[in-house]
Amino acid sequence: MSEDRGFVEELSDYEDDFDRWYVEVVRKAELADESPVRGTRVIRPYGFALWENMQAELDRRIKETGVQNAYFPLFIPQSMFAREAEHVEGFAPEVALVTRGGNRELEEPLVVRPTSEAIICPMYARWVQSYRDLPILINQWCSVVRWEERPRAFLRALEFLWQEGHTAHASLEEAEERSRLMLEVYRDFVETELAIPVVPGQKSESEKFAGALRTYTIEAMMGGKKWALQAGTSHNLGDHFGKVFDIEFLDAEGQRRFACNTSWGLSFRVIGATIMVHGDDRGLKLPPRVAPIQVVVVPIWRREAERDVVEEAVARVRDALTPVARVFVDRRDDKTPGWKFNEWELKGVPLRLEIGPRDVAKEQVVLVRRDTGEKQPVAMAELATVVPELLSEIQAGLFTAARRMLDDNTVPVTTYVELQQRAADNAGFSRAFWCGSEACEAQVKIETKATIRCIPFDQPGTTGRCIVCGGESDAQVIFARAY
Amino acid sequence: MSEDRGFVEELSDYEDDFDRWYVEVVRKAELADESPVRGTRVIRPYGFALWENMQAELDRRIKETGVQNAYFPLFIPQSMFAREAEHVEGFAPEVALVTRGGNRELEEPLVVRPTSEAIICPMYARWVQSYRDLPILINQWCSVVRWEERPRAFLRALEFLWQEGHTAHASLEEAEERSRLMLEVYRDFVETELAIPVVPGQKSESEKFAGALRTYTIEAMMGGKKWALQAGTSHNLGDHFGKVFDIEFLDAEGQRRFACNTSWGLSFRVIGATIMVHGDDRGLKLPPRVAPIQVVVVPIWRREAERDVVEEAVARVRDALTPVARVFVDRRDDKTPGWKFNEWELKGVPLRLEIGPRDVAKEQVVLVRRDTGEKQPVAMAELATVVPELLSEIQAGLFTAARRMLDDNTVPVTTYVELQQRAADNAGFSRAFWCGSEACEAQVKIETKATIRCIPFDQPGTTGRCIVCGGESDAQVIFARAY
Repeated sequence: MSEDRGFVEELSDYEDDFDRWYVEVVRKAELADESPVRGTRVIRPYGFALWENMQAELDRRIKETGVQNAYFPLFIPQSMFAREAEHVEGFAPEVALVTRGGNRELEEPLVVRPTSEAIICPMYARWVQSYRDLPILINQWCSVVRWEERPRAFLRALEFLWQEGHTAHASLEEAEERSRLMLEVYRDFVETELAIPVVPGQKSESEKFAGALRTYTIEAMMGGKKWALQAGTSHNLGDHFGKVFDIEFLDAEGQRRFACNTSWGLSFRVIGATIMVHGDDRGLKLPPRVAPIQVVVVPIWRREAERDVVEEAVARVRDALTPVARVFVDRRDDKTPGWKFNEWELKGVPLRLEIGPRDVAKEQVVLVRRDTGEKQPVAMAELATVVPELLSEIQAGLFTAARRMLDDNTVPVTTYVELQQRAADNAGFSRAFWCGSEACEAQVKIETKATIRCIPFDQPGTTGRCIVCGGESDAQVIFARAY
Repeated sequence: MSEDRGFVEELSDYEDDFDRWYVEVVRKAELADESPVRGTRVIRPYGFALWENMQAELDRRIKETGVQNAYFPLFIPQSMFAREAEHVEGFAPEVALVTRGGNRELEEPLVVRPTSEAIICPMYARWVQSYRDLPILINQWCSVVRWEERPRAFLRALEFLWQEGHTAHASLEEAEERSRLMLEVYRDFVETELAIPVVPGQKSESEKFAGALRTYTIEAMMGGKKWALQAGTSHNLGDHFGKVFDIEFLDAEGQRRFACNTSWGLSFRVIGATIMVHGDDRGLKLPPRVAPIQVVVVPIWRREAERDVVEEAVARVRDALTPVARVFVDRRDDKTPGWKFNEWELKGVPLRLEIGPRDVAKEQVVLVRRDTGEKQPVAMAELATVVPELLSEIQAGLFTAARRMLDDNTVPVTTYVELQQRAADNAGFSRAFWCGSEACEAQVKIETKATIRCIPFDQPGTTGRCIVCGGESDAQVIFARAY
């Protein structure tokens, strides 16, 4: 029966047409749907449940570092938004403006937050008088709006869901420590929960956050075209915002000083990363730790007489598994088992559990892994032990495969021709020395469309020659095309 | 030492100046702060932690009824918003409009959602073809914007946090059942978690949701002026939105029909209710089940030699209580114990735990209840048993006191003069027969400022005379002033 797969939702070829494959997977797996507002998406229950699981794991990690959640207003008065010069210059082209409210023209337009530094820092200025009021460690989960001309589900959206953390500190050292700590939280979250290996590093001056002193990033490699995706960023803002927004305090010696700030954000584009890193021709492969459904149970019977026998076993299986896994029983009676197999593979459920009358007679079920396709009979009595083990194996396997993809497609490059060729071939990350000049960086971007994704923390410890100008360089960078 | 309370944050008198008391408690207990945007507030970590606890409990209950979370866009095209006539008429005066984005005037302004029926129903129309696609049961947690001329923290805000559930059904009966079910979820949540008794009932035609067939509500009585607060509403929308937005489906007999919808919402105004129902002259009294901190530990020592002894005991106490309660140890060394006692009373922490050197010698601590002020020594070995018991007692005690306040101030009224007098005196809820005419309802509103809060489900089962016109009536209603 499992051979009869009935109607198959055809997906575009993963290798040959990755961009179309991505769009189709998002829609057919019911993660998100187009909305009547250009550039925005509706996040459907299956996609949102995935986000909720991610949120729970990241929120826990953030709180463990002493951060508390809060909520700041959606709207920012335009003049307040404009106070930090670099910040407004970077974001002004992307903002949405509310100009009418309550049937009146507003005296001052309100910016719909694209990020919240400009509304949070004035509050910190009010709350901080003495060094005893520091640090302030706050995070918020919310949606933000950035006018996006080339929207792409989860990756670039006019409105997106994220968390943004904002801290204030008595010293630059402490701010630096916090910005690095939060990058490490992101790295651990993305690698452990999403099974996506990343390259942590620092952004170049031209790629850093508008208004920041330094921006740190974790960069992941996507499947298909092997482009990079910036999966999370953490900014040491120095005292730029402290000075502009008057976050002033008396230190322990009674001296007036400005606070130093950090901000750090991770958005639902990591859903896009999860799709692109692990997916294949059949659709999604969700990492078990965040999958909304970890085990889907498909009862198989033909005659009514078999139904009761199977259903009784299904109830036992569900009761046995519920304490150890997120289980869903697919009881739809207008779909064949084969149709269901396809759908749950498309939706990336890590384990499928089949039970038919002959399985019941043998007190067993058949488990099928989404990652390897491997089938195995398992005694019902052992399910509660075997399933968690398999889920761990799958999680580890996804990470290993993604690590291999990243390693295999990250290559040290020493000539400019090679760099150009690799960018043209969508060949992955190119690791090369760079002298630090914006001119060299810009030339690569114009000529190859590859950008400096980051200056990795992990450096060879030797010096070299800039891949562009041949000048002296003490740091390698990652060049890659990026989403 | 506990007598020396140091600096006391003076609050306005709870009985004499309730409105000012409310504003001060919100600010001084650090629940929320004013923001630079008129009509909005910043929800500070202590207030937000309270909201997170409420969210967790309500979210769990909502999901238990089969509802899934999702996320729909913040913006609604103006023409789409305008499709349901009553709906737009009700909300148009309150909307905020985005007219510019990405440095351009928009061809069509976007409404910032005041509620999401008009963006969700078009999606349901896309997802529903057959009766097999029904019901759709979706909820979202988000912020919404309604231009508010008389803002008041948590109660009326230009932007507020809430959940809004939206369902679609194959029949009106099923929609009715769902709208009643969700009201019951709200009643259970508010009474069980927030210890606030409510009167469930139906709204009059003039008070129902713009576009609804019927609106159900739970109404609570606040302290102080004994005004009513609408704590949650659930709407049976009939097929009004189904027809306007074309949510059409083929039923089991192959006939084309329109889906029936419900929507239901509960906002962070229940934080306002929690403040106003349980508070007193000293500040907040938070119900233990949702209190961010259930037990605050205040170590008491004078000389350094005592400090180590006390700290060692504090560590043991914290370890013993952490598995059974949310515990916070207040180790600030620039505040006296008395100052801390005041602050935690203001912040409404249900239990205070004091430990000094003499307590340590006796292997005991002193527990002080926020609700009764009662002090009792408790052996350290018994803490993990006694604390959960006391928290349950406090939760039950708060509910009983609130129930008494509601019952004592809900009075059957048979003459119009009495109704007027009670409204003028802020005397609470008046229960009276009403003939159902909008004219009588409007007269009461104009002459007394009291409105019909609801037609309670719980009716005497007899008929009577309308309190206004003397006409025949088969239902009593609750008249009250409302926030």
